[in-house]
Parts: sequence; structure tokens; C-alpha cells
Amino acid sequence: MTDRPNVLWIMADQLRFDYLSCYGHPHLHTPHIDALAARGVRFTNAYVQSPVCGPSRMSAYTGRYVRSHGSTWNGMPLRVGEPTLGDHLREAGARAVLVGKTHMTADAEGMAWLGIDPASEIDVRVSECGFEPFERDDGLHPDSPRQQWSAYDDYLVAHGFQSDNPWEDFANSGVDPDGELLSAWLLKNSRLAANIPEEHSETAYMTNRAIDFMTEAQEDGRPWVCHLSYIKPHWPYIVPAPYHDMYGPEHIVDPVRSEAERDTDHPLVRAYQDARVCRSFSRDHVRDHVIPAYMGLIKQLDDNLGRLFKWMDDSGIAGNTIVVFTSDHGDYMGDHWMGDKDFYHEMAVKVPLIIADPRAEANDTRGVVSDALVEMIDIAPTCMSALGLDPKPHVIEGRDLTPILHGTEVFSRRYAISEHDYHWSEMARSLNQPQEHAHTVMIHDGRWKFIRCEGFRPVLFDLETDPQELTDLGASDAPEHVAVRARMESALLDWARRHHTRITATHEVLARQKRAAESGILIGFWDGKEYLEATGKPFDSLMPQGRPD
Amino acid sequence: MTDRPNVLWIMADQLRFDYLSCYGHPHLHTPHIDALAARGVRFTNAYVQSPVCGPSRMSAYTGRYVRSHGSTWNGMPLRVGEPTLGDHLREAGARAVLVGKTHMTADAEGMAWLGIDPASEIDVRVSECGFEPFERDDGLHPDSPRQQWSAYDDYLVAHGFQSDNPWEDFANSGVDPDGELLSAWLLKNSRLAANIPEEHSETAYMTNRAIDFMTEAQEDGRPWVCHLSYIKPHWPYIVPAPYHDMYGPEHIVDPVRSEAERDTDHPLVRAYQDARVCRSFSRDHVRDHVIPAYMGLIKQLDDNLGRLFKWMDDSGIAGNTIVVFTSDHGDYMGDHWMGDKDFYHEMAVKVPLIIADPRAEANDTRGVVSDALVEMIDIAPTCMSALGLDPKPHVIEGRDLTPILHGTEVFSRRYAISEHDYHWSEMARSLNQPQEHAHTVMIHDGRWKFIRCEGFRPVLFDLETDPQELTDLGASDAPEHVAVRARMESALLDWARRHHTRITATHEVLARQKRAAESGILIGFWDGKEYLEATGKPFDSLMPQGRPD
Repeated sequence: MTDRPNVLWIMADQLRFDYLSCYGHPHLHTPHIDALAARGVRFTNAYVQSPVCGPSRMSAYTGRYVRSHGSTWNGMPLRVGEPTLGDHLREAGARAVLVGKTHMTADAEGMAWLGIDPASEIDVRVSECGFEPFERDDGLHPDSPRQQWSAYDDYLVAHGFQSDNPWEDFANSGVDPDGELLSAWLLKNSRLAANIPEEHSETAYMTNRAIDFMTEAQEDGRPWVCHLSYIKPHWPYIVPAPYHDMYGPEHIVDPVRSEAERDTDHPLVRAYQDARVCRSFSRDHVRDHVIPAYMGLIKQLDDNLGRLFKWMDDSGIAGNTIVVFTSDHGDYMGDHWMGDKDFYHEMAVKVPLIIADPRAEANDTRGVVSDALVEMIDIAPTCMSALGLDPKPHVIEGRDLTPILHGTEVFSRRYAISEHDYHWSEMARSLNQPQEHAHTVMIHDGRWKFIRCEGFRPVLFDLETDPQELTDLGASDAPEHVAVRARMESALLDWARRHHTRITATHEVLARQKRAAESGILIGFWDGKEYLEATGKPFDSLMPQGRPD
Repeated sequence: MTDRPNVLWIMADQLRFDYLSCYGHPHLHTPHIDALAARGVRFTNAYVQSPVCGPSRMSAYTGRYVRSHGSTWNGMPLRVGEPTLGDHLREAGARAVLVGKTHMTADAEGMAWLGIDPASEIDVRVSECGFEPFERDDGLHPDSPRQQWSAYDDYLVAHGFQSDNPWEDFANSGVDPDGELLSAWLLKNSRLAANIPEEHSETAYMTNRAIDFMTEAQEDGRPWVCHLSYIKPHWPYIVPAPYHDMYGPEHIVDPVRSEAERDTDHPLVRAYQDARVCRSFSRDHVRDHVIPAYMGLIKQLDDNLGRLFKWMDDSGIAGNTIVVFTSDHGDYMGDHWMGDKDFYHEMAVKVPLIIADPRAEANDTRGVVSDALVEMIDIAPTCMSALGLDPKPHVIEGRDLTPILHGTEVFSRRYAISEHDYHWSEMARSLNQPQEHAHTVMIHDGRWKFIRCEGFRPVLFDLETDPQELTDLGASDAPEHVAVRARMESALLDWARRHHTRITATHEVLARQKRAAESGILIGFWDGKEYLEATGKPFDSLMPQGRPD
């Protein structure tokens, strides 16, 4: 145990905040994640900066809002020169290491402008969102040119799972009684067992790779943040035995939805409900097939984390490692007549967040539940603080959560922000919404959730009187709602107007500007007497001494 | 003469739009610049994106608003990875070459993050705002660590002007009858002749260097944009003989100001008026000393441009070179009780802009005066268009002016925008304004000029009824003014809310997202039948064919 612990930052993908027993799920028992919460702080109001993988992760890895880093949707490259957690850590001699998914797309145009050699170490880091890739695996999607073959595919082949696409044919398909492969891309196949033994599944593999990394890091000796980034429970929804058969209809929580929601007059909300994935998840038989698989994937993840945490205990690494557990966004699963994510109801935009700090300073907060309004962009500065780095307020927009972990300070944030571009979507096409305006932003103060929909009226929920978000107050005439909407709109515009790109205002730069200003920038002085009166220094003496240093 | 001319982009520094005879100055005759206007288009409503050197130039060289590139004040480095005109030109095999001033500060922190070698070609370009530096000279300021010694200093020493600081002792000082040097940093010395023959002055030297470049470029053969960037008539205000003695009190135009302006209730405007440089230029004896020198510097510039244009004619280069003439901002010279620049009255934020295109397509617009609302960020895309490059709307926020030059299209822009950070200034200190809020933005629609002052009421001018901007309507109760302010505020917020950092949305990236969206991203399909109905393709056939390409 030292003063400077390392950080294991675990991220699940598409994990709803409420599908863990410590967050209240009645049937899905996740004792290992619950145990982490018992030795750390569990946050009940943690919001992602975009309810979709790519931009949410780019915010996580930069500590900056989507508006700031500009990677507004999946596959929108993170621009070269956008500073990442990895950049900050390396500056201080520490490592930011990736084991798993980032959803990063490299900025080929920007790298070409800078003349960065695609074979160089710089290129690798820039292409991996600042991480040193120990293991990169974004999953293999037929529609994605990002990743054609992963180390996990090699692993499968080496273990006898021979195929042109072992990721799909084994890890993400089931088999019918005749031995025919049934793809988990189709929801009807979700309840089958994945065509792979659990110990060779993606979740198990990635857990093993984290152990490999930490073993190597022990020898290396440099401080580190390891981002262990699981692909599951993200679709394709399929899980190996025995997890495929652990949950049935009796374990499925009722959908959060009302008939009244379908009568919405809001064109964008209606367009969402009409999108294929939402129509699909609005059908009970889809939920009945998919939710048991989704729960199985989470249960499997919990068991693997149990194995990982035990290994960390046994190897002595746990005592010097802060563990962060979170997700990049949630999953509607048919709630509010919606599927997948991409909007701002709690199950999409709120994520589980647990941070367990082994240091003595955190002894008084073990098992504490914090309802502080926190954001995904807070994790990067919290990691930086743990490793002893200076804060960088000119770059990092998130806030260090250490005061909550150590119980030293009340943490107060007025608003959480989340953003989404839907220019690529069915909604944009059906509404004929131009690219520049296919944009929504959520601002949430812990009670009121206001969603600005460019070109349409806003959506408003009052989570105090309507915690299930069934009543949209965005068109309500009640004076209170009118006033709240005006206040939230104004706060959103304040935030939007702020500097988001002035990332070169380092202490050094500002000090230089201050010196220049205080010396009067040498303009407007009539004569030496005036100069002396204003500055207290004779004019002549300044000339040589004031020369550039 | 080819279809693809090169571009000579001439920029003066701190040149007011109205101190040229073609823009109406009654006593300052600038026949060479006027002749350029006679063979091109002269713009009467050209606005810079910031009324101060650094940010204005960073906007010019990137084609992007200050809000977008983030370099909000002098010495605030332009972030690594912010794409410049030079980057776009190089992509197409053309050159962007610097001869003179850029006011660029390199982003040392960002370059270190990327691991860019300070000795590399990449570093040189990133440090020079994307330009290939043929000649870099920002002037030698005692308070600036940017530049200690320039090639111009070498030149002076080589020509017998021996000193530790030849820039200051010869080019920017006068001499009293006893032979003592009198610095032009002090305004009382402005009417002296600079201690240097005209042919060795900065303006003459830089003109020669442009000729050197164009001579070399003829042999090189690659297409180019040459940024010939003069330091003058920027302070220190002093000019060599005979220009120091060409103008006297009888040539000084009366100041644009009213006693009523001094009674303003606007705290920020009052703080400006109280700043030293403004108090200084509000004194008649300062104006009487400085304006003749300022006029002399402009007259000298005009004569040098005459020499340059003649050389271009004689060498045949003129026929294949578009000439752009502009400035990075103006100079109050005591108007509105203000000195220097840094605010948004016409003499500070409006600049001269003349573009002469030798191509036959421009024959019908020679001598045309355009009152189109244009911005400094339009020059970069106009250069790109001239050199045959594709537009890059995902990066470039300015607009190609070629349709005006060729008379093919009515150009319509609703608003011009300009921004300023004053966190470093006397105003910020006297108002105790925190850094984040020491920010102003102008939005101007050609008639109404609305200036949003964070933390204070706005300033509003009606240029139709009050072209001299003597009456601030920012607090007027008149319904028309209330409505205009609401409209301008709303337009400003629309602009601020837009994507400014999403610069990686290339055609290729968007096409990939569109393909992914159209193939349905493979989520939400229950079975093969549903997939077939939705996409027209059998599910199985997609799997192998849909693989990443």
C-alpha cells in the first residue's frame, strides 16, 4: 500500500444502472459488484455525456463534454490533438492501458495533416484514444470497417474454434438441434446458449487479459490506470451456458411505460417510438427473449469480476488499486416504448458508478451511497488525482471525485449534461431533419430533466413527482413548468456559450499574458515620465532588461 | 495565365478600413491600393473575427471562428491539430508560404502530448500556423518571448546597422539633434523620422522578401498561396523619411466621438475608456503626433505595394496571381475616446478587403464595390477555391467569395461574428471580472450591431440611423430596440450552440455512418423474415458480404 494507488477502471457496455442487486434489481443478484459497493462509494446519480457508446466513451477518456471534443456519434473520429487521460498520465510518467473496447475511430485526415506516420507509436496512441493498447477489442460488427479480426479471434482459433469469423460463429451464435448456427444478431435466438464454453467467452477472455496486464505491470513498476472495458452486456444478446438458462419470465421486471406515452404530440419522441428497434422492443415477446439473455450476461460479468477481485486479493494488488466500476450508457429494453439507447430516460443516460478506494482516507465512506450529481467526465480527473497529477482545468471539464471518496467535502454540481446527434438515424430521415439540426441536449439538475430538441419543443420531466418519467411537461402551461423550462434553457445556453476549445490556456501561457498586461504592453505611453508614474520603473531601464528571456 | 492562379494574400496590421483613398480618406492618397481595387472587387463590409491580432489571424489562417479554434487572445497558442489553410493546400500538392507576421504561438503542451519532435518539419509547420515559413517576423517586442532575433535583424546588421537590437534602435527609434536614440515606444517620438533609410525599413524589406519568394516559386512550379504579412502600420508608430513629414494637423480627420459617450452607464465601456491607452488617445496632442506617423506608414506601404505590383507585372506573375489585400483589425486612434483596438466600433472591427482576380471570369466585376457582409474567415476558402480544392464544410466556417468575384451569384450572409477575451486586461482587473466571463461577442447583420458583454447589459448600435455609432441603444426601452436585441441575442445563441468542434465529419465518415444506418445497424430484428422485409435482402446473404471491407 502506497499513497499513490493504481486505478482499475472497469466499464461494462450498455449496462443499465438498475440491473444490479446493489441498485435494487429484485432477481438479478450480483454479489461481487455489490461487495465492491460495500467497500467503496456507490453513486446513484451518475450520468453519461451521451447515451451512445462512441461519444460517451470519448467524453470518458478525455474528461470533456461531447460539445468540446466533437466526436458526436459512433464512428466520428476523435480529432487529433484532443487531449486524453493517457496524454496527461504519460506526462507524469504513468501509463494508461487499454484492455478491451474503446469504440474509438482514428482521425485519418487529421493525422495526415500533421504528417503523423501511421506506423509510429504516436499513431497507435492517437488511434487508441490515448491508451497504450494491451488488448483492443471492439467486437466484430459486420457493418464496421473498424475491426476485422481481433486477438480474441486468434485466441478462439488457437483453442480449436475454427471459422472465418469465430467471434460470430462461436461467441455470438447459438446452435439448433440439427447443429445449424443461429445468429444472435436476430433477437429470436437470444435465449439459446452461445456456441462456446463460458471460459472461452469474451467476458472471460477479457478478464484473463486484465490479469495478464496487472501481472506484467507488477514487474514494470510504473504507475498505471488500466481501462478494462467489457463488450457485454451489449448486443448481440447471447450468453454461454449455464447463464443462458438462469432467468425466465418470472425474473423480468415490468416495463416502465404507459399507454399515454404513445399519444405524445412530440414529433421527435414519436419518431423514436416509430424506429424499428423501438417497435421491436415494445413487443412483449422480444422482451421475454432478450431480457433473460441480458440478465445472464450481467450475471456472468459479475462472476468474472468475482474471479478478478479474488485474484487481486490473492496477489496483493487489491490493496494498492482503486477500482472504478461503471458503464458507458444503459439500454431501454422496451421501457417508454423504446429499444437500445440514444435518448435520455434514466435507464439510458444514468449508469451505475462504484468507486472503491483502498486507502485509509476512504475508510469512513465504505458502503456509502452518494446521491451527488456526477458525470462520466469526472472519472478521468479522479484517476489523475489518485496518481498525484495536477488538475488541468483548462482542458478537463469533469471534476475530481476524491473529496466524496474521502468524505472531506460536500460536492455540489448544478447540472449534468448529455448530448446526442441523430443525423444518421431513422428519426432524422422520417423527420427530414438536416444534419446540423439533428441534435438533442439534456440538462438535469437532479430533479428536473430538460431535453432541448433542436427544431422542436423541449421535453421536460420532474423526477420528484414523476420518478418514472411518464409525463412529459415540455408543453405544460403551468407557471412552474414554464419557469423551470426558461431556467433550464438559460442554464444550457450559459453552458453552451462557455469556452470549450480554449485548451491551450496553461498556467504558463496565462502567466505570460498577465506579465505582458502588467508591464502595460508598452502602448499608449506618451513619455518616460508617464511610464515611470504608471509602472514605477524608469522607461530606459526596461528596454534592455525587458528583453525576451 | 492558367485556370488555377496562385494567390498573393497581403495583410497589413492594424490598418483601419477608412485610411485609404479608395475607402474615402480625404488626404491619404493610396494610388496603388486604389488601382488594385480598380481591377478587383472592393468590399465595404468586411469584418474580422476578433478585433485583436492573434485571434483574428488564427481565424484568418484556419477559416474558423475564434470560438472554434480556441486561440482567444494574443499568445494563446493555436492547438495542435487545429486544421489550417496550409494543411488543406498541402493535401492537394500546393504550398502555403509565410512572408512576415502571423502572431502565432506554438502549442508546446499539445505537441508534447503528441510526441512531436521540436526539430521536425511537422513542428515547424504546427509552430507557424500551418505555413511553410519563407520569412517569419512578428516584430521584436520587449515583452514577448516569442521572437528575440529575426532574419530582419541579421539583414540590418549585414547592412551596417550594428546594435544589440537593430530592430528597435534603427527601424523603431528616432534620433534627437544630439544623436541620442528616442524610442518610438513613447508616443511623443512618433513624428520623428525612423533612424533608418526607407529602403531598409521593415516594410521595404518584407516587400523584397515577397519578390524573393515569388522568384523562387516560379522555378519551383508548385501552386502556392503566399501570405505577405506586413507588421506596419501597427505600433510602434514611426516611419522613415520622407514619410514622417508628409502629413500634418491639416490632414487629420476629426475624431469620431461625442461628449455624450463619456456619460455611458455601461461598466465595461467605461472601463475601456478608463484604460491607459484609451485615455492616452483621447488627448488631442497624442492624436496630433501619432496620426501623421500612422498615415505615413500607410503611404509608405502603398508605395511599396506599387513597387511590388510593378515587379509582378514586369515579371509576368501578375497575370496568374490573385491579389488579396486586407488587414487583421483597425485602430481607434482616439475615436469613441478609445485607443488601439479590442472593441467593436467600425474602425476597430471592420477592415479593408480588396480581391483582384486576373481571370477572365472576373472581367465584369473589375472596379465593383461590394457591400456584401463578409468575414475574414472567407479568405481561406476563397484561396482554396482558386487553387481548385474541394470545399471542406466540416472544418471551414468561412465561405468562398469566388461567386462575388465572378459576379455569378448573390452572396448572402445573415450575420458577421467577432469575439474578444479581455481577461488579461486593465478592464478585467478594474471590474474584477473572472477569467471565464471576461468575454464579449459582436453579432452584426449589416444594420444592427449587437455586442453581448458577459455579465453586463449588451451594447447596440443602429448603423442605419447612426452610422458613426455614437448612440448605444443597449438599454433603450423602445419596442423596436427591445425586439432587435432579442433577435440578435437569439441569433448569437443559435450560432454558439452549433457544432464548432466536429471537424472529423468528412464525407467518408458520414458516408460510412449512412451506410451503417441504412443497413439497420443490425439491431432490433426479430428474425430473418423481418430482416428481409425491412432491407429487401435475405439475412444470411448479408453476413459474409456485409463483412468489413
